[in-house]
Amino acid sequence: MLAALEQALPATSFVYLGDTARLPYGTKSPTSVERYALQCAATLVQRGVKALVVACNTASAAALPALRLTYPDLPVIGVIAPGARAAVDQTRNHRIAVLATEGTVRAGAYQQAIQTIDARVQVTAIGCSVFVALAEEGWGEGAIAELVAKRYIGALFEPADAPDTLLLGCTHFPLLRNSLATLVPAGVTIVDSAETTARTVAALFPESGHDLSRRGHSCFLATDGPERFARVGSLFLGRHIEASAVERVDV
Amino acid sequence: MLAALEQALPATSFVYLGDTARLPYGTKSPTSVERYALQCAATLVQRGVKALVVACNTASAAALPALRLTYPDLPVIGVIAPGARAAVDQTRNHRIAVLATEGTVRAGAYQQAIQTIDARVQVTAIGCSVFVALAEEGWGEGAIAELVAKRYIGALFEPADAPDTLLLGCTHFPLLRNSLATLVPAGVTIVDSAETTARTVAALFPESGHDLSRRGHSCFLATDGPERFARVGSLFLGRHIEASAVERVDV
Repeated sequence: MLAALEQALPATSFVYLGDTARLPYGTKSPTSVERYALQCAATLVQRGVKALVVACNTASAAALPALRLTYPDLPVIGVIAPGARAAVDQTRNHRIAVLATEGTVRAGAYQQAIQTIDARVQVTAIGCSVFVALAEEGWGEGAIAELVAKRYIGALFEPADAPDTLLLGCTHFPLLRNSLATLVPAGVTIVDSAETTARTVAALFPESGHDLSRRGHSCFLATDGPERFARVGSLFLGRHIEASAVERVDV
Repeated sequence: MLAALEQALPATSFVYLGDTARLPYGTKSPTSVERYALQCAATLVQRGVKALVVACNTASAAALPALRLTYPDLPVIGVIAPGARAAVDQTRNHRIAVLATEGTVRAGAYQQAIQTIDARVQVTAIGCSVFVALAEEGWGEGAIAELVAKRYIGALFEPADAPDTLLLGCTHFPLLRNSLATLVPAGVTIVDSAETTARTVAALFPESGHDLSRRGHSCFLATDGPERFARVGSLFLGRHIEASAVERVDV
């Protein structure tokens, strides 16, 4: 997500907070996730942010209303609405499959968001909790990832009227993208909400979009130890993060 | 762990607290785990418990000193010392392999505990974070579990002087026991700390051990939603837990 934001808004500075002391959110109840998201938001608001991107599907599903109520003057952007929009734009047969955490699936978040945009679309949502552990272990590719992916979605594309669009409804899942691609028939599109979300954010700040004369700066906050954040975060961001550049915060 | 305790102390009542809102502990820093363990203990002490069993290896590694300092009059039993003792009693070639979470391995908890008992023993500790997700998904057996186990311990028993004892240093890992057994050569013993820990606890309460005329009663507290606790807890306990029997608590 941060990589997509940095690309869409190169002159903007980002404060990235990873709630590593309490992750993963994907198996927690909506009540807990909402409370955690409000605590994280308070820390970010104290740092003077001009907008809040909820770069987690589970937190977007559980906490957007509470965040918007608490910060009525701050733009709060979740990943679910942009992801749903991208998938609906893509599908031709009105069938979308969503891979997400248990929490996002149980909340019915994508099902609702997609059918609000186009009520004709049939949504199949599959909880894939083990993907999160694989992504964090750096095992997004290889035989294990492919076998786990097969267990979760092996039967999904068998019917004649199978979905033609596969939406990655968790910010961890792009790390499994190549493994998923081995199971996805030709003609099925894999959609990741990071890019669409970044475009949504960029549209809010048109003036800061492409002033390449100055570069933004991203800084990192984590609620648990910086070493693990730096190691796992480097996998996600696709560039090296130094542990010494990660600030430990209590939220 | 609870199953072993119930068997060792059939007349005793247990209060089981699962900190499901913040699990897994295995990838968290010692500072966070210590804070969480103290909060959980406070809730249990309010319920009038006569002893505290820290039924989590990561929490045993991180929080025992702080718990004993905070509750000097309460017996506090961790799983690491009993597990280390059982493994040392078992090994003939003075080589023990420990499978644990990243946190337990990084803390060096088993390495220290084993070498305090017998300094001649060589300890190989391997962090197996993905096992936790597999156990919670109910995927402790089958092709995926075996492939993940092979990735973690495939090379462990190749050397001529390989360990003859494999200690399961996480309370989730007994659910992977059959998968691990397929990789373990004849002559290697798999040791699980639950039974030894239960015997340690039973020794503290000799009077309540085997009075079978009255049965104890276990009750369940969870910091997150009861449904997931009941589902995953039933896998671990080996008997059905009703969600309605789980009390949600804030710690």
